[in-house]
Amino acid sequence: MSAPKKVVLAYSGGLDTSIILKWLQTEYGCEVVTFTADLGQGEELEPARAKAELLGIKPENIYIEDVREEFVRDFVFPMFRANAVYEGLYLLGTSIARPLISKRLVEIAAETGADAVAHGATGKGNDQVRFELAAYALNPDIKVIAPWREWDLTSRTRLLEFAEQNQIPVAKDKRGEAPFSVDANLLHTSSEGKVLEDPAVEAPDYVYQRTVHPEDAPDTPEFVEVTFEKGDPIAINGESMSPAEILTKLNELGGKHGIGRLDLVEGRFVGMKSRGIYETPGGTLLLEAHRGIESITMDRGAMHLKDELMPKYAELIYNGFWYSPEREMLQAAIDKSQEHVSGTVRMKLYKGMAQTVGRWSENSLYSEAHVTFEEDAGAYDQTDAAGFIQLNALRLKLLAARDKRNKG
Amino acid sequence: MSAPKKVVLAYSGGLDTSIILKWLQTEYGCEVVTFTADLGQGEELEPARAKAELLGIKPENIYIEDVREEFVRDFVFPMFRANAVYEGLYLLGTSIARPLISKRLVEIAAETGADAVAHGATGKGNDQVRFELAAYALNPDIKVIAPWREWDLTSRTRLLEFAEQNQIPVAKDKRGEAPFSVDANLLHTSSEGKVLEDPAVEAPDYVYQRTVHPEDAPDTPEFVEVTFEKGDPIAINGESMSPAEILTKLNELGGKHGIGRLDLVEGRFVGMKSRGIYETPGGTLLLEAHRGIESITMDRGAMHLKDELMPKYAELIYNGFWYSPEREMLQAAIDKSQEHVSGTVRMKLYKGMAQTVGRWSENSLYSEAHVTFEEDAGAYDQTDAAGFIQLNALRLKLLAARDKRNKG
Amino acid sequence: MSAPKKVVLAYSGGLDTSIILKWLQTEYGCEVVTFTADLGQGEELEPARAKAELLGIKPENIYIEDVREEFVRDFVFPMFRANAVYEGLYLLGTSIARPLISKRLVEIAAETGADAVAHGATGKGNDQVRFELAAYALNPDIKVIAPWREWDLTSRTRLLEFAEQNQIPVAKDKRGEAPFSVDANLLHTSSEGKVLEDPAVEAPDYVYQRTVHPEDAPDTPEFVEVTFEKGDPIAINGESMSPAEILTKLNELGGKHGIGRLDLVEGRFVGMKSRGIYETPGGTLLLEAHRGIESITMDRGAMHLKDELMPKYAELIYNGFWYSPEREMLQAAIDKSQEHVSGTVRMKLYKGMAQTVGRWSENSLYSEAHVTFEEDAGAYDQTDAAGFIQLNALRLKLLAARDKRNKG
Amino acid sequence: MSAPKKVVLAYSGGLDTSIILKWLQTEYGCEVVTFTADLGQGEELEPARAKAELLGIKPENIYIEDVREEFVRDFVFPMFRANAVYEGLYLLGTSIARPLISKRLVEIAAETGADAVAHGATGKGNDQVRFELAAYALNPDIKVIAPWREWDLTSRTRLLEFAEQNQIPVAKDKRGEAPFSVDANLLHTSSEGKVLEDPAVEAPDYVYQRTVHPEDAPDTPEFVEVTFEKGDPIAINGESMSPAEILTKLNELGGKHGIGRLDLVEGRFVGMKSRGIYETPGGTLLLEAHRGIESITMDRGAMHLKDELMPKYAELIYNGFWYSPEREMLQAAIDKSQEHVSGTVRMKLYKGMAQTVGRWSENSLYSEAHVTFEEDAGAYDQTDAAGFIQLNALRLKLLAARDKRNKG
Repeated sequence: MSAPKKVVLAYSGGLDTSIILKWLQTEYGCEVVTFTADLGQGEELEPARAKAELLGIKPENIYIEDVREEFVRDFVFPMFRANAVYEGLYLLGTSIARPLISKRLVEIAAETGADAVAHGATGKGNDQVRFELAAYALNPDIKVIAPWREWDLTSRTRLLEFAEQNQIPVAKDKRGEAPFSVDANLLHTSSEGKVLEDPAVEAPDYVYQRTVHPEDAPDTPEFVEVTFEKGDPIAINGESMSPAEILTKLNELGGKHGIGRLDLVEGRFVGMKSRGIYETPGGTLLLEAHRGIESITMDRGAMHLKDELMPKYAELIYNGFWYSPEREMLQAAIDKSQEHVSGTVRMKLYKGMAQTVGRWSENSLYSEAHVTFEEDAGAYDQTDAAGFIQLNALRLKLLAARDKRNKG
Repeated sequence: MSAPKKVVLAYSGGLDTSIILKWLQTEYGCEVVTFTADLGQGEELEPARAKAELLGIKPENIYIEDVREEFVRDFVFPMFRANAVYEGLYLLGTSIARPLISKRLVEIAAETGADAVAHGATGKGNDQVRFELAAYALNPDIKVIAPWREWDLTSRTRLLEFAEQNQIPVAKDKRGEAPFSVDANLLHTSSEGKVLEDPAVEAPDYVYQRTVHPEDAPDTPEFVEVTFEKGDPIAINGESMSPAEILTKLNELGGKHGIGRLDLVEGRFVGMKSRGIYETPGGTLLLEAHRGIESITMDRGAMHLKDELMPKYAELIYNGFWYSPEREMLQAAIDKSQEHVSGTVRMKLYKGMAQTVGRWSENSLYSEAHVTFEEDAGAYDQTDAAGFIQLNALRLKLLAARDKRNKG
Repeated sequence: MSAPKKVVLAYSGGLDTSIILKWLQTEYGCEVVTFTADLGQGEELEPARAKAELLGIKPENIYIEDVREEFVRDFVFPMFRANAVYEGLYLLGTSIARPLISKRLVEIAAETGADAVAHGATGKGNDQVRFELAAYALNPDIKVIAPWREWDLTSRTRLLEFAEQNQIPVAKDKRGEAPFSVDANLLHTSSEGKVLEDPAVEAPDYVYQRTVHPEDAPDTPEFVEVTFEKGDPIAINGESMSPAEILTKLNELGGKHGIGRLDLVEGRFVGMKSRGIYETPGGTLLLEAHRGIESITMDRGAMHLKDELMPKYAELIYNGFWYSPEREMLQAAIDKSQEHVSGTVRMKLYKGMAQTVGRWSENSLYSEAHVTFEEDAGAYDQTDAAGFIQLNALRLKLLAARDKRNKG
Repeated sequence: MSAPKKVVLAYSGGLDTSIILKWLQTEYGCEVVTFTADLGQGEELEPARAKAELLGIKPENIYIEDVREEFVRDFVFPMFRANAVYEGLYLLGTSIARPLISKRLVEIAAETGADAVAHGATGKGNDQVRFELAAYALNPDIKVIAPWREWDLTSRTRLLEFAEQNQIPVAKDKRGEAPFSVDANLLHTSSEGKVLEDPAVEAPDYVYQRTVHPEDAPDTPEFVEVTFEKGDPIAINGESMSPAEILTKLNELGGKHGIGRLDLVEGRFVGMKSRGIYETPGGTLLLEAHRGIESITMDRGAMHLKDELMPKYAELIYNGFWYSPEREMLQAAIDKSQEHVSGTVRMKLYKGMAQTVGRWSENSLYSEAHVTFEEDAGAYDQTDAAGFIQLNALRLKLLAARDKRNKG
C-alpha cells in the first residue's frame, strides 16, 4: 500500500483519536479530514471542532454531523425487523453503528478527494473488521489506516508521551487509565475490558451508565403502548414520532425501569471470546414489542422461516458484513415479511423487565372464532384434524413398520 | 378402523377423562386400562385409582406411575441442551410432556394386550397431534381414539348430563365452567381459553398459579449457582441433585421471585393462532444458566450452528415430532455440542428476572491472555488482523469493483 | 360445506375430466364452467371445447386459454432463479404448474360468479394439495371439490359404466387402462404408476415420450449458448426469444440429445414414497446454464446462502405452498441475488449430458488478475493469507489448548 | 514465531517439494522429516525415499505410507454420507484429502519431536488454509511453515536457479512450466491455472487425465450394482470390497465411461473465484448411487433436513474446517440419518452419465401397498387428505381473509 495523501478520520474529539490525528500527520505527512458524528452517544460535538482546529485541521476539512435519524431509520429499525440477537442475547448495538460511520467516511473521502480513511479501533476487536469491510465494500480502492495495528504506542505511557510531545492537551481525568472501555450510541452503551475481564466476577455497579439498577427502579409498574407500521415503531402511547425520537423515548422509559442490561461472554469474529456489559434499554423494549406485534400479524410459516434466518443475519451484522449481498438478500426476505406487521403492543415495565400484556391490530390473524373453546359456529371442523394427523403420521408409521418388520 | 377391544386411556382422574373412560366403555364396549402419570403437575394420584375402580376398572388395569425423573432426564434436559424456544419465547412445557405419555400408553398397551390408546385432547389443539404422532411412531398398528373429535358431547351441559346418566360423580366446583383451561407438569403451567381469549386484554392476576407477582416478590435479590455437566444441570449452590430434584428446586426459586411468566400469542400446528399464559419458573432459570455456561465452554462455530438449528428443533417438538428421524438427527448434533459444556453459572434473581452475573469452568475457552487490553505477551498478533480483514474483504472489493466498472 | 351452485372445473377434455364434469352436474345439480389451459402439454385444445359443448356446457362457460408465456415467465423462471431441485434431483415440473391453474380457476370463479372450483387429482397424490392450497390462499371462501376423494367410481369398470350411462364418448384406446399415468406441460413430462410401481425394475423404454434415448441421440456433440439477464434466459445462440419460446427451444435441443431423464423415488407430502419418471429436457439445460452464469456473476456469500435456502424453497413448491408468505420471502431473497446474474453460458450437449464449457459476462467477478499463477502485479498479497489463517484458526487453537490442558 | 528446529514436510518427491526441503534446511538450518503419502494419486512412492536421502534426510526421518484405506474410510465415505457438493457441483476431492495429510504431519511431529510442519501450498489457494487449520486444530502449539508465502523464489527462473545452486536434480520435462497445475488422489484429479485461466474458453482435451472423452466411451451402456450398509458402499456387483478397493473399482468404471468431468468456476475461501477442471469418476457414481439408496430407505423428514444442512457441511470441508466442532456436529446428525441406509442400487453407465435405474432394500420405506393406483385394500384412506389439506390451508385462509377484509 502506497502512503496515503489525504485521510478521513473517524474523530471523536477525545484523546485517543486526537493522538491518531496527530500521528497520521506526522507518520504519513498527510492531510487529515475529521468526521465527527452524533450517533446519540450523548456527547457534545462542538468541542471536537475546536480540538480539530487546534490540531491544525482546516475548517473545510472538519465534518460534524447529526446522523441520529439516519442511524435509527436505515440501520437500527431494519435490524430490529429481524429480531436480531447475536448468540441468543446481544442486541448488536455497537455492530450496527459501524457501517454508517464507514459509509460517511467513504462519502466524505469522495467529496474531499481523500484516498484513505482511518479509524481508532484496535487490532483485537470486531470493530476494525466492521469499519474496514464496510469501507472496502463501498469503495474497493480506498485505503484504510488502522493506527492501533501499525504504531508502536502500545502502552498508556507511550501514548501520553506522544500526546505531550505533540502538544495534545490531556484532560486530567484521562491521565490515568479508564477502568473499562466504553462505546455508546443511541441504541446502546457497551463496556468491556479491565475490571470486567474476569467473567466469573460480577460487574461492579459503577459500570452501568444508562439504566438505573432494577432495585432502584420505581416500585410501581408503568405501561407503555408502541404502535408499529410495516415492522417499524411509529408512535408511543399514541404519539407519532420520528425514528430517533422513538428510540430516545424508549431509552428513557427503559432506563428508568432498569431494563436492558446484559452481562455476556461472546465469540468475537477474530476468534477469541470477550466479556461485555451491554445496556440497551430502548432496544430491549423494541424487541419485546416487535415480537408482540408480529405474534398476531405474521403468519406462522413466515415467522418460523424468519426465526431460522435470524442467527445468520445477526452473525453477518456482528461480523461486519452489513454491506454484503447475503445480508441484503436476507433483508429483502425480512422486509417482505413485515408488510402487514402493523398495530399496537402494550407492555408492562417493572424492575428490569418489559413484558407484553396486550396487542391488537387491524391486520390481526388471530381468530377468536376459530380458537374459541366455545361453540365455533362451524369455523373449524374438528374432524379435519383426524386426516391431518393421519397423513402427518404416515411416514412415521412406515418407519415404525419397517423397524417392526426387520426386528420381527 | 375397526372397533377397539381394549384401550389404554391417559387418565387424570378428573371429570373430563372420567367421562371419556365411561364413554369408551359404552360407545365401544371395550375394556379400559387407565394410565395416570405424575409428571409433577402437583396433584395427588391415588384418588385417580379410587375413581377408576369406581368406574369399573380392574385393579390390574390401573397404572399409576411417578415418571418425573424420566420426564426431566430424557425429555426436558435434552430439549434444554438445545436452548429450544418456540417462536422466540415459548419454552415448550406442554409439548415436551406429550411424547412421554404416549410412550407409556403404547408400552402399557403392549403389556396388557390392548389394541388402542385414547387421550383427552380436543380437535383444535396441538396436543392431539403430539399424542397421536408419538403413538403411531412407536407402534404403527396402534389405534388412537380421540373422543373429543368423535362424540357429540359438544357442550358443558351435554357432558354433565352424560356424567349424571352414568353415575360419574361431579365435584361441585366442576359444575360451572372453569374460567380458563390449565395444563401443568414439572416444567410449566399453561393457561388458555375463555377469559384469556382476547389477546388485547391483560391476563387477570388470578390466572397465575405458580409464580408470585413480581411486585410481590422479595425486595432483595437472591443469587443462585447452577452447575452443569455435559449440558445438563447437576447441582444447585453446590448441592448435587437428581434431574427432577434440580427442576423442582429451580421452580421453587423462580416461583418465589416471580420469574418465568409469559403472555404469548402463538401459531398452532393446526393452523390457527392461540393465546396462552405460561409459567415456567425453573425452565427460565435453566435456559439462562445454560446459555451462560455455553458462553464460556462452547466454540463460536458450534454455537452459531446450534442457534441456526434451534428454531427447527423447537418447531419439531411443538408440532409433535419428538419421535421422528429429523428430531433425532438434530439431537445427535446438539448432544455432540454439549460434550464440554460443564461448569457453573451464577445468576441474580430479582422481581421476575434471572440474569447471569458470573460463570466459570475448567473447560472455559475464554482466554484472558488473548482478550486483555493489557500487554498480552504475544498471545495475539494484531497484525494478523490486517490479513484477516483483507481476505474477508476481497470478495466485497471484487463486487464493488464490478459495480464501479459497470457504472463508469 | 353447503352444496356448490356453480363450479369451475379444470378440464382437459379427456375422459376422466369429462366424467367429473358430468358427475358434478348429476351429483350436485350445479352449473359447470370449464377451464382448459395450454401449458405446453402438447395437445390440441379446441377438441375440449367441442367436448364441453357436447356435455351441455354453455359457450360462455367454456374458457380455453394459452397460458404458456405466463407459466414460464411467472412460475418456471422465478423457480429456476433458485436452482430449485427437490430431494436433490427433481426439477418440480408438475408442482410448478398447479398454482397457475388454481389461480385461473379462482379468477374465473370470480368472473363467472362461481362459488366452487374442481380438479381431477386423486386423494393419494401431491396435486390435490397443490391445487387446493393455492385456491384457498387466493380465495379463502372458495369451495374446492375433489371428486376422486368423494365419489364411488373407484375402479376403471365403474368409471366406464358411468361414462356409458351418461353418454360420454369413450375413445377406443381409453377402454383399457393406461400402463402408466402421465402429466405434461412445457417444463416436463412425468410418468408414474402401474408398470413403474416396482422401484427395483428399470422403466421400460416406451415410458419416455419427450426425449430420445441417449443411445439414439446424435453421435456428435452440439454446442449451445444461453444468454441471461437478471437470472432469466433471454436468448439462445444470440437470438432473443420470449420465455415460452426459450423453453420450447431448450426442450427441442435437450430432447434431441436425450437430456433430462430422471428415474426417482421421492417422498410425497402426504407421507408415502412414490416412483416417477421425469423428462425435463429444457429445464435440465436451463439449470446447468443458470448455475454456470451464477458461477461467474454471483458472490460466494450470496451463492452459499442461496444454496442453503434452496431445499426449503423447493419443498415449499413441491408441497403446494407457492402462494405462501414464506415462499414469497424466499423469492424476495432469491430475486435480490439475481440482479447481476447476466451473461452467456456455452454448453456441450451429448448423449444425455449437458455440460458447461464456457461462460462470460460484463458482470463477471472472476478476476484473472487475482487468481493467476503468474505474477499478479500486486493484485493479491500472499502474506495476507497468514493473518487470515491465524485468526480463522484462533478458536480452533483455543479448543485444542483446552483439550490438551484438560488431558494434561 | 521463533525459528523451527525440526520440521515435518509434506513431501511428494517432486521438484517443488524438494526445493522446499532444501530451503527449509538452508533458511532455518532445521532438521527435516519427510512424509510422503499414497492417497491414490497414482505415483510411485519409493523414488521419494531415494530423493529424500539424496537431499540428506536421515532414513529414520523418512516416512512413506499408504493411507488409501484410511482416506476412503474415514474421510471420503463420511463426506459422501452427506451427499456433499460445493456450490452445487464440486465433489470436494482436494478438500477432503488435506485434513488427513495434516493429521499425519502432526502425529509424525509428535513422534519425532518436531516443532513444526510444512506444506507446499501457495498463498492464493484454499489448500494452505486447509492444511493449517487442521494442523492448529490438532496441535495448537505446532508451527506451520508455508514457504510459498515466505520465500523470494517467486518465479520459475528463480526456483530453477535455487535448485541448481543446491544440487537438486531437475527432470528435463520439469524445466519448462507445466501448462496447468494438477492435484490427484483416489477421489479425484483437479487441474487449474495457466491454459485454464480464461473461464470463457473450453478446456483443451489434454487436460483430462483420468476419464476418457465421453465420445470415446463404449457405445454400449454398462450396468453396475452398488450395495450399501449404513450409508457406505460395501460391494460392487455383489462382490464385497474394502473402502479403497470400492473407490478404485468405481473409478475404473466411471473413467471408462467418461463419467465425472466437471468444468467449474468456484468461490475460494480466500475471496477470489477460480476455474478448475475436476475428474471424479468413482465419486460421481458413488453420489448417484447413494442418493438412490437413500431415496428408498430414508424418511422424507430426515432427507430434507439433511439437504438443508449439506451446503453448510460442504462449505466447512471446502474451507478447511474438517476438524471443527460444527463439522463434527453435522457429522453426528448425518451419521444418525444413515443407520438404515442399506441396500442395492443399479445404475446405467453410458457416455459420461450415470443414472439410477433400480434400487431395492430390506429397509425400504417404499410401500407399493400405499402408493398403488390399484385398489389398496385400505392401506390409505383418501378422505384423510381432505382434513390434511384443510388444516394445512387454515393459516393461508386466515391470511387471505385478512387481505380481503382489509381491502373490502
